[in-house]
Amino acid sequence: SMSQLEKHTRRFTEYLAANPFHGKPETLYEPMNYIMELGGKRIRPALVLLATESAGGNAEAVLPLALGIETFHNFSLLHDDIMDAAPLRRGKPTVHKKWNEAVAILAGDNMLVEATRFMALHGDKEGHILGFFLQTAREVCEGQQMDMDFQQRDDVSEAEYLEMIRLKTAVLLGCAMYAGAVAAGTADATAVKMYDFAIDAGMGFQLQDDLLDTFGDPVFTGKQAGGDILAGKKTLLWIEMWSKATPEQRREIQSLMADPDESKKVNGIRHLMTLTGAEARVRELSESYFEQAALLLHDLDSEGLDMTGPAELLAFLRGRQH
Amino acid sequence: SMSQLEKHTRRFTEYLAANPFHGKPETLYEPMNYIMELGGKRIRPALVLLATESAGGNAEAVLPLALGIETFHNFSLLHDDIMDAAPLRRGKPTVHKKWNEAVAILAGDNMLVEATRFMALHGDKEGHILGFFLQTAREVCEGQQMDMDFQQRDDVSEAEYLEMIRLKTAVLLGCAMYAGAVAAGTADATAVKMYDFAIDAGMGFQLQDDLLDTFGDPVFTGKQAGGDILAGKKTLLWIEMWSKATPEQRREIQSLMADPDESKKVNGIRHLMTLTGAEARVRELSESYFEQAALLLHDLDSEGLDMTGPAELLAFLRGRQH
Repeated sequence: SMSQLEKHTRRFTEYLAANPFHGKPETLYEPMNYIMELGGKRIRPALVLLATESAGGNAEAVLPLALGIETFHNFSLLHDDIMDAAPLRRGKPTVHKKWNEAVAILAGDNMLVEATRFMALHGDKEGHILGFFLQTAREVCEGQQMDMDFQQRDDVSEAEYLEMIRLKTAVLLGCAMYAGAVAAGTADATAVKMYDFAIDAGMGFQLQDDLLDTFGDPVFTGKQAGGDILAGKKTLLWIEMWSKATPEQRREIQSLMADPDESKKVNGIRHLMTLTGAEARVRELSESYFEQAALLLHDLDSEGLDMTGPAELLAFLRGRQH
Repeated sequence: SMSQLEKHTRRFTEYLAANPFHGKPETLYEPMNYIMELGGKRIRPALVLLATESAGGNAEAVLPLALGIETFHNFSLLHDDIMDAAPLRRGKPTVHKKWNEAVAILAGDNMLVEATRFMALHGDKEGHILGFFLQTAREVCEGQQMDMDFQQRDDVSEAEYLEMIRLKTAVLLGCAMYAGAVAAGTADATAVKMYDFAIDAGMGFQLQDDLLDTFGDPVFTGKQAGGDILAGKKTLLWIEMWSKATPEQRREIQSLMADPDESKKVNGIRHLMTLTGAEARVRELSESYFEQAALLLHDLDSEGLDMTGPAELLAFLRGRQH
């Protein structure tokens, strides 16, 4: 039988297909629909629907809020792709490559406006959902700026890095669950607990994503092995390795990073990430966030909420490592 | 004695100086404050205050809405400057030049979020102001896209061009007055009349701006004479000239535009804009919008509203031509 997660993901995908953006000029709305239709796991909108059902609400009623959250997510991908000069997303040309940068900036701007309209028109009357969403939007911008700043520094602490991924990635997952819960009429304290659950699950997920990029099997991940290492990205694995490395190991890191042999570079850095204890530390952190999320899940369950859907989501997010 | 317009502009300038953006990382908030502090006539925030007082409300209470409107305006300038690759704004380096494009995109995104927060937190409880603002934000994006599309076409009609400047420029002036009027508790029909007044004044103003760029005295305008002609910008003057030109005149236009002698180019095209009747048509349109605004002003005045402030604004906007 179909899982809760699968059911909600499918329902959202149908709803999205039936509700494309439309307006004039078409040159503005076409790239907006293009990025929305590139696909993705649709985890954020599924979280809105799951949270509502857990809280005894009706998933059909919150589809517009789910669309608002997914639209915001795609706005941030669209603008991040310009900032990163990324040529591809999900194997297709990015909007600034398929059209141009001006079109990509403006389409993103209008997606941010549209996302806010969904949250304003379909949120609660008191505006808690909208206010929470706007606070989240601000935090996502702050996280993206921190990420850019960190690429220019070599003294980023673990705490700073964790705060950056909380803002850049986790808070939107949290906002998705908060919105779904509040829309179902849940008490604010319960909605905040759902928010915390999604934050922890999101943090565990993001750290695991970094581990998979470096240590995962490309057959399963579908990504180039060591892509982050080759791109010189300062992930937490990199930060932990550098801070724990001896002077000799730091020289080795520098020499490996300058090596034109890509396979030697990836294998060498990967080895040092294990040797310095960086890998173990990131695994420990990822696991502890997932554990924390599981505790909140039990907590919410014992409050009488049906947490079947969120439990499936957590298992899905954790399970990717195998 | 100080005019209403001057009083409100000064009050807003004080309020802006006392309420800079703040948050972390500073690298995100510094460029946001930089563009806000570059100056400008502050017409949009003054319109919010003027509209509120005309409707019997308290200008002090709507300062946050005025800040929201001015923040949105500066967001649009910031992103437009990237799209136009403009190196300077008000004689100072643009944000993408002083920092870089990524910073400029993100600072603009966060300004759009902050602008919306001001409108959501300080608008009416029913959300009419916020809803109107979000509709306006969408229209401004559409207007900017139309403007970009028009630069690639040579068959733009007068009606299409007027619709473009209505969306790109006038609707935000309208939204400023609408927000001020609704915040004062005015009946919706009156707020809509104020909106229409600002739209007409804004259309007249924008067309006059194009006339001043081409026919104005640089001593008074502070701009390079014929800047639009040299930049090859398709203003309404250009569109009217091209549509009214004989085949022979079109050949002359093409030869002038290819001429490396800038002064010959500007004088030649300017002469053809007069000869073809383009100048007269744009003056006629600009005047008729100002006239229409004046009629709405009398109308609102006869409804018992004190339109002293808006009347001063209209005189200020019209008066620039002398």
